[in-house]
Amino acid sequence: MEFYLSPSTLTPATVRPTGRSTTELRPLSIEVGYTRHAEGSVLIKAGDTHVLCNASVLEKVPPFLKGKGQGWVTAEYGMLPRSTHTRSDREAARGKQSGRTQEIQRLIGRSLRAVFDLTALGERTLQLDCDVLQADGGTRCASITGAWVAAAIATRGLLEQGLVASNPLRDHVAAVSVGLVDGLAVLDLDYIEDSGCGADMNVVMTGAGHFVEVQGTAEGQTFDRKALDELLDLARDGIVQLIAFQKQALG
Amino acid sequence: MEFYLSPSTLTPATVRPTGRSTTELRPLSIEVGYTRHAEGSVLIKAGDTHVLCNASVLEKVPPFLKGKGQGWVTAEYGMLPRSTHTRSDREAARGKQSGRTQEIQRLIGRSLRAVFDLTALGERTLQLDCDVLQADGGTRCASITGAWVAAAIATRGLLEQGLVASNPLRDHVAAVSVGLVDGLAVLDLDYIEDSGCGADMNVVMTGAGHFVEVQGTAEGQTFDRKALDELLDLARDGIVQLIAFQKQALG
Amino acid sequence: MEFYLSPSTLTPATVRPTGRSTTELRPLSIEVGYTRHAEGSVLIKAGDTHVLCNASVLEKVPPFLKGKGQGWVTAEYGMLPRSTHTRSDREAARGKQSGRTQEIQRLIGRSLRAVFDLTALGERTLQLDCDVLQADGGTRCASITGAWVAAAIATRGLLEQGLVASNPLRDHVAAVSVGLVDGLAVLDLDYIEDSGCGADMNVVMTGAGHFVEVQGTAEGQTFDRKALDELLDLARDGIVQLIAFQKQALG
Amino acid sequence: MEFYLSPSTLTPATVRPTGRSTTELRPLSIEVGYTRHAEGSVLIKAGDTHVLCNASVLEKVPPFLKGKGQGWVTAEYGMLPRSTHTRSDREAARGKQSGRTQEIQRLIGRSLRAVFDLTALGERTLQLDCDVLQADGGTRCASITGAWVAAAIATRGLLEQGLVASNPLRDHVAAVSVGLVDGLAVLDLDYIEDSGCGADMNVVMTGAGHFVEVQGTAEGQTFDRKALDELLDLARDGIVQLIAFQKQALG
Amino acid sequence: MEFYLSPSTLTPATVRPTGRSTTELRPLSIEVGYTRHAEGSVLIKAGDTHVLCNASVLEKVPPFLKGKGQGWVTAEYGMLPRSTHTRSDREAARGKQSGRTQEIQRLIGRSLRAVFDLTALGERTLQLDCDVLQADGGTRCASITGAWVAAAIATRGLLEQGLVASNPLRDHVAAVSVGLVDGLAVLDLDYIEDSGCGADMNVVMTGAGHFVEVQGTAEGQTFDRKALDELLDLARDGIVQLIAFQKQALG
Amino acid sequence: MEFYLSPSTLTPATVRPTGRSTTELRPLSIEVGYTRHAEGSVLIKAGDTHVLCNASVLEKVPPFLKGKGQGWVTAEYGMLPRSTHTRSDREAARGKQSGRTQEIQRLIGRSLRAVFDLTALGERTLQLDCDVLQADGGTRCASITGAWVAAAIATRGLLEQGLVASNPLRDHVAAVSVGLVDGLAVLDLDYIEDSGCGADMNVVMTGAGHFVEVQGTAEGQTFDRKALDELLDLARDGIVQLIAFQKQALG
Repeated sequence: MEFYLSPSTLTPATVRPTGRSTTELRPLSIEVGYTRHAEGSVLIKAGDTHVLCNASVLEKVPPFLKGKGQGWVTAEYGMLPRSTHTRSDREAARGKQSGRTQEIQRLIGRSLRAVFDLTALGERTLQLDCDVLQADGGTRCASITGAWVAAAIATRGLLEQGLVASNPLRDHVAAVSVGLVDGLAVLDLDYIEDSGCGADMNVVMTGAGHFVEVQGTAEGQTFDRKALDELLDLARDGIVQLIAFQKQALG
Repeated sequence: MEFYLSPSTLTPATVRPTGRSTTELRPLSIEVGYTRHAEGSVLIKAGDTHVLCNASVLEKVPPFLKGKGQGWVTAEYGMLPRSTHTRSDREAARGKQSGRTQEIQRLIGRSLRAVFDLTALGERTLQLDCDVLQADGGTRCASITGAWVAAAIATRGLLEQGLVASNPLRDHVAAVSVGLVDGLAVLDLDYIEDSGCGADMNVVMTGAGHFVEVQGTAEGQTFDRKALDELLDLARDGIVQLIAFQKQALG
Repeated sequence: MEFYLSPSTLTPATVRPTGRSTTELRPLSIEVGYTRHAEGSVLIKAGDTHVLCNASVLEKVPPFLKGKGQGWVTAEYGMLPRSTHTRSDREAARGKQSGRTQEIQRLIGRSLRAVFDLTALGERTLQLDCDVLQADGGTRCASITGAWVAAAIATRGLLEQGLVASNPLRDHVAAVSVGLVDGLAVLDLDYIEDSGCGADMNVVMTGAGHFVEVQGTAEGQTFDRKALDELLDLARDGIVQLIAFQKQALG
Repeated sequence: MEFYLSPSTLTPATVRPTGRSTTELRPLSIEVGYTRHAEGSVLIKAGDTHVLCNASVLEKVPPFLKGKGQGWVTAEYGMLPRSTHTRSDREAARGKQSGRTQEIQRLIGRSLRAVFDLTALGERTLQLDCDVLQADGGTRCASITGAWVAAAIATRGLLEQGLVASNPLRDHVAAVSVGLVDGLAVLDLDYIEDSGCGADMNVVMTGAGHFVEVQGTAEGQTFDRKALDELLDLARDGIVQLIAFQKQALG
Repeated sequence: MEFYLSPSTLTPATVRPTGRSTTELRPLSIEVGYTRHAEGSVLIKAGDTHVLCNASVLEKVPPFLKGKGQGWVTAEYGMLPRSTHTRSDREAARGKQSGRTQEIQRLIGRSLRAVFDLTALGERTLQLDCDVLQADGGTRCASITGAWVAAAIATRGLLEQGLVASNPLRDHVAAVSVGLVDGLAVLDLDYIEDSGCGADMNVVMTGAGHFVEVQGTAEGQTFDRKALDELLDLARDGIVQLIAFQKQALG
Repeated sequence: MEFYLSPSTLTPATVRPTGRSTTELRPLSIEVGYTRHAEGSVLIKAGDTHVLCNASVLEKVPPFLKGKGQGWVTAEYGMLPRSTHTRSDREAARGKQSGRTQEIQRLIGRSLRAVFDLTALGERTLQLDCDVLQADGGTRCASITGAWVAAAIATRGLLEQGLVASNPLRDHVAAVSVGLVDGLAVLDLDYIEDSGCGADMNVVMTGAGHFVEVQGTAEGQTFDRKALDELLDLARDGIVQLIAFQKQALG
């Protein structure tokens, strides 16, 4: 796997409450082997957002893929009730997952599938569980970035055990949020920034610099094409750095 | 309400299975007053995609807005079981809405709220029900475009009855899908094109030409910045036409 | 299929709020081919009650019929949230179908099965979806009357494709409501009449003039045998007319 | 409360598997005070069908009746899992009540309300719980007949305690099934007869001989008006006897 | 089956509200054959606590036991809504079983399995349904004691029909509650005592005098080892008597 | 808070697969402040069992305590899907909590309430969330032991902020499992030992050496009084050590 992303020439500004510049990611750490049962287990920390990403290899596929000679990659997402500033209801106790939860886990699944060769995976499922232990904005992006590392460890295991002939993982994938805060484009929003921003965008990108998902949403303030372009540039710079962290985590 | 959108200079190509050019919308019709109980009722047909959009004015707000002096705009979405090529399960019978349904109805609600002045609406809810009678791709976009018309009729009624002092609806909003089919950017995908496309994007835009939502997804094929830019141009052209239809439907 | 029903000699009275006589049906229309994916699709309008009836042919049977050499006919019913005067909750969002909904869809299924030769149908299911687009009383009766037409179109298709050797549909079936309003027996109640009536009855009858279902309910006022007899006569007259409309709709 | 029902002159025939004549009820017993907490508690046995009917007086009304100066009568119905020949799933474990259960409990509630003066009841609810301990056909009819006795005991208690000024119970109500078995009209079907009958009807009638509910259903065989008339006569004779049992049970 | 339990030498004290001594069980009766469809049916009455225990023989096993050459014993538990002093919600209507219900039915299942030879049972399930008709404390203990008798009748039937080669039931099992009321250890708490006790314990024991389950819970007052020892002695004495009743009920 | 527990004189044996003696706890660590939003946050590790225990102070009480001048302590429990050797279904996705989950969270809540002065807590709820990040047996015991520390930190906060006048926490509480493995009593079972043990017991005890809960269960092998006594002694020794760890964690 080679990677082609190189940084843009955006000018950083330092006007953020936490002292970060507009083009700066939060401190990032990726701890591999955080739990011991999963085939790939990663604790990713993006500032105060901590997500445990576990990859499980299941020797079965969903019904619609039975006998089709290919595998599946899917994800589930959850937040611990007190990962948030004020306690949220436990979804298991309420008896259903919120629309937000379902939207996020569908996004994680699609993002990871975009860099997988499902035929090379064989008739098995790579199940990704992203559980937020502590939340401070950007949990879906941290989940995707961390889940990729967990998936890479799990597929490396499949290769080492000879269960797959070639690596089903074709490229990196990582995600970052960008947004307009007081008219200024900023990278990697924390919770306070996210709450106050006029528009935000989650960008999922491969190591080759291609988009997998672009989800921009006006939060009370619509945005024009120029702002959109600036946000996309900013996101790209963030992705470059995130992918470097992923490589480093894998050793 | 004035509108600033003017068409781009994209060159149309006629290579689509149905004979449409790459820059051409499906035949569109918007029938107002389709049912009689709703405060605004619209049947929108975008080719073979038919969605009944009903706007209800409810004299109540959700708990989190009680006593805050503002209103709310929200949406629900559903597909009749046999709106699709093969029959789908009825969500009421299965006992829950799918992740897709929840994702779409959240998108419709956000899109409409982006052009509403919730304070001008007063302490009431505008509830939008988008029910797909027949589906042939692009149901979420048709829902947004049609729901705007239903909302406009309902708010016009509020104005006429003197229930609101000023129009809470500040601008148009409409949505269209664009996608890459065999590497070619095409506008307003039908079901066949949607199934076969490498990447698609739903774009929600105001009459002022600002983005409300941009949701691009790689379906098996990631896309670069150049393709993204072309898709955004194409979408903008579609929105210009859709908003013209909305104006005409309102008379 | 021959039909034996001939009208009774009831004397009409014109005392109803809408100007209809006591023995007069609401204006009825049956539009076939309303949607394009279903094997049979009918929009039936009985006054302001509009129901979309779709018949789907599914090449499977419920588990209890597997391998028994016969088919099944079943129905589901729903009301769009704003089909009613004030908006009702969406059953898919509430997560369950009401007792009323289940009662109605069981009634529709039983009524249709009564005129089907399930062995002639073969090991397949005819699934009827009756969705109320606009409600003004009598939705279950309109559903049955319309579903029969949708079913007839679907079975005609099976015959034309040679999938069944003989017509599994043995007779017409139609339904109408009758009730006591201020002591007077009236035919085909609309919502206002239904709300104010002392007793009402839904009668489901075949083209041969036989009963399939008789469901009479005292709504605040019990009724004697004489009143019951008069209601049954009135219903029969309504059924005669409904079946004539069904024949006409099939061309 | 006076009662006007007198028997018809139907000719009994003795052709039933159990030796009963066509016009004969199953052995009936009504044991009052079966459990001690309920305000009215009755174990009714109609042959091998045993239903425990408990009436609870709740000092509250449903939301839609709050402050309206009247009460409510409602019912719930259940079958113990092994009340049936083969064990049925427990509805509490499955997480929902079947359509059949809901249909029956709605019928019981309507039937009882038909003989109640809800204003005389005051702002309280009479909650009837009908739980089938052993089933052999006719459980909904036994439930209604037994629930009336439980309700009568509970309202007697209200009168004795001076909680109501006048008796809110205005008349008896009882229910019986009739059906066509091999073309012959028979009274009070047991499970075997019910399974094999061509058409059956549940009739709910007051002490004054008025109908509350008439629910006739063709089970594979439609029926004409003459058969319907005979079934109604037969049902009336059964109700006469059931009401005599109710009077006797109350002492 | 032989039994080894003999009474302890605890000194009874007569200080209980109902006149029972501290070491005295409530009047117990076990009526076999209470309903007719179940393979074993028992109505057990421990004072005012009445539980109907039905044992069903199902010719299937849960998925995790398929093809393993052994059977399964499991239980479900329910309370009729008005078995209690004030009416409880019906779990089937609420759509789920409470935590308490699930805890109790898991306890009943484990208790019975402890005395079963599941291999001797063969590939079938003994399903125990314990439904409380009237509650006055100690329903889980009465359920276990009664379910054992129902199970014994059902397995006797299997032996008589030659469906099992040897008796899969290896020993008696019975249960009783004990508790500290005002510092005094008492046997077989009724509802009033249970509500007021500082600590209670449910003890499940075999005929051989071995423990199957010991569940002691401080209810507002923790307890020391000495109190625990006294409660265990007391429970043992109760079990001796309960097993004698079981033997007598089986005849 | 003073503590009276002193160790017993049990003789340790070293026969366990992991090299631990029969009377030896797994390596224990309690990390306070693991997450930052909760009022008390503790990661407890008992060998390979890792549980995140968060205590939230909620300024509300359940409905049944409104206006009663006292608070409430309650708990919820969950396992991350891949905390286990093979992946378990996510309860939020399945739509309900298992019976086991409910049993455990009820146990945790009762155990903590036993050492709380709910009046001193005031009208607020201490909500404990115990989420298993990695499981290797004994998760409910680790949850209780860890939840106590989280609760102690949260109540210390209440004291420091002057929100409570006196400490509502009256004593320590901790829990440990003991079991019979191959006839030998062993302390603090890990998953392998738990799977293979004949009987196990969870003991919850206060700092004063009093029992809060004793839950002994025969797993395939019943146990006599002598074994029970030995298990209780062993548990007591474990609790002594656990409470020492709790004290140390609080500093």
